Amino acid sequence: MYSPTIAIIGSGAVGGYYGARLAQHGHRVHFLLRSDFKAVEQNGWIIESCNGDFGLRPGQFHAYNKSADMPKVDLVIVTIKTTANDEFPNLIGPLLKEDTTILTLQNGLGNEEALAALFGAKRVLGGLAFTCINRVAPGHIRHTAHGLIRLGEFGGGPSPRASRITDLFNASAITCEVLQNLVYGRWEKLVWNVPFNGLGATLNRSTDQLLANPSGQKLIEELMAEVVATAASTGIQLPKRIIDEKIEQTKGMGVYLTSMQLDRQNARPMEIAAIVGGPLEIAVKNGIKTPFLQMLHLALSSVESVT
Amino acid sequence: MYSPTIAIIGSGAVGGYYGARLAQHGHRVHFLLRSDFKAVEQNGWIIESCNGDFGLRPGQFHAYNKSADMPKVDLVIVTIKTTANDEFPNLIGPLLKEDTTILTLQNGLGNEEALAALFGAKRVLGGLAFTCINRVAPGHIRHTAHGLIRLGEFGGGPSPRASRITDLFNASAITCEVLQNLVYGRWEKLVWNVPFNGLGATLNRSTDQLLANPSGQKLIEELMAEVVATAASTGIQLPKRIIDEKIEQTKGMGVYLTSMQLDRQNARPMEIAAIVGGPLEIAVKNGIKTPFLQMLHLALSSVESVT
Repeated sequence: MYSPTIAIIGSGAVGGYYGARLAQHGHRVHFLLRSDFKAVEQNGWIIESCNGDFGLRPGQFHAYNKSADMPKVDLVIVTIKTTANDEFPNLIGPLLKEDTTILTLQNGLGNEEALAALFGAKRVLGGLAFTCINRVAPGHIRHTAHGLIRLGEFGGGPSPRASRITDLFNASAITCEVLQNLVYGRWEKLVWNVPFNGLGATLNRSTDQLLANPSGQKLIEELMAEVVATAASTGIQLPKRIIDEKIEQTKGMGVYLTSMQLDRQNARPMEIAAIVGGPLEIAVKNGIKTPFLQMLHLALSSVESVT
Repeated sequence: MYSPTIAIIGSGAVGGYYGARLAQHGHRVHFLLRSDFKAVEQNGWIIESCNGDFGLRPGQFHAYNKSADMPKVDLVIVTIKTTANDEFPNLIGPLLKEDTTILTLQNGLGNEEALAALFGAKRVLGGLAFTCINRVAPGHIRHTAHGLIRLGEFGGGPSPRASRITDLFNASAITCEVLQNLVYGRWEKLVWNVPFNGLGATLNRSTDQLLANPSGQKLIEELMAEVVATAASTGIQLPKRIIDEKIEQTKGMGVYLTSMQLDRQNARPMEIAAIVGGPLEIAVKNGIKTPFLQMLHLALSSVESVT
């Protein structure tokens, strides 16, 4: 069975959870940590999960606070916040062998491209994580719902490698699917992320509050339509019904605060470039009129730098 | 000398301050109050003002909690929040003689029109209050800066009546000017009010924070340009330099929270229709593209109904 050595670059909630699941199932996982390094090195991981709680003792994994101390690995899983993407060279460079694969599970657009430019497109896969995971305390993670990963080749199409990684995840209590078209998947997720993350942060409103009246719903729909039109300008045809479907799904989610709203509330950097700036840049380049996206981007950039 | 009997409809910060100034100078002022009625009836007014503090004892004015108890007067000054404009008939109807004049000092568009439709256009004047006044406690008002009133006929042009009221105000420690073109004055004020009130409330940002970076400033400029274009579609030509001028003036104001931001923070109704909805309606009717105004209106309406 495929059992690569694995590095988790960015061991926050998402990286910590998925890495811990892989280690729990016997894989050799090397976590790169920053603020929580000491706590995790000394006490291990505590994972509360809707799929079953578990813990990892320090001997069951490896923890580091800089990449230079880590071994080269077979698979690098990238889960740092996109606001730190300019640290890719130092964080990932030291871990690469000739045939090391890099899988980014980050949000939004531009991550695969940045990794490909630095380390070669052939290495790169991208994935979308559909999950609700929070860091409760250093080394203590709470996974409350979902958990699906959908991943695919940056270059597109199926591959033995994408299937192997998918099997590895599925055998480690992580539901995983291969995406035939990663770019399609990214745009599909952006249809939700742009309005709910963007408006959640600018208006300081949870998803249920945003959908609580016709004005909020219209705002969401207009932004979604602009994302759909921008995707279409790149050749990605999302179905018209996606807007209604996403709104209905969100109504079923109850009270939910997006990561960007929480980031603003806690005066942390927001993933503006990956989630809103990326799509806007493409819209501008392709001559697609997206005034709401433009205003949202200005509003986010405006509040970002005032804390 | 002209000394009309005066009713102040809406004796909050603005109505309380201007009414108290008129009563201080010997005019017969009848205040309509709501929540602060008992306190003011029993203890009078306390006015702290950058133009000189003063107080009014209960015998120096008249206080009421419903219009039906008030006498008919010569001059009705309207200072209720525009969100209560649907109460005009009950609030103002009982006070009118054949020749009673109505002066509205409310924010935004549509107030003169609503009064004219109900009580006849001939009665109506409008005014703009440029001032910083807060209600500190029941019957206790703090006037911290400015205070200018600019007023004019709803029908336009100069009039002996507008001059008489202006003289009355100036003789009562209220700096006042006649506006040759009230509608021009309203649009000029909207150039400021739309972005700073609207964005202040949606983004929860003070005027200095909104101007603290290029994104915020661009957002302000785009909204101002849409208001200027909308005004132009009605025949009101504001000078191009107004945008830079308003921004420079605002930079000189320091930390300032607009009324709409404070209303949202305190879960009070916001003056969305008068300040943002009115201009947007005119833009749509005249076929002027104002996407930022439209998005701002949706955002305000969205947050308004969720408290």
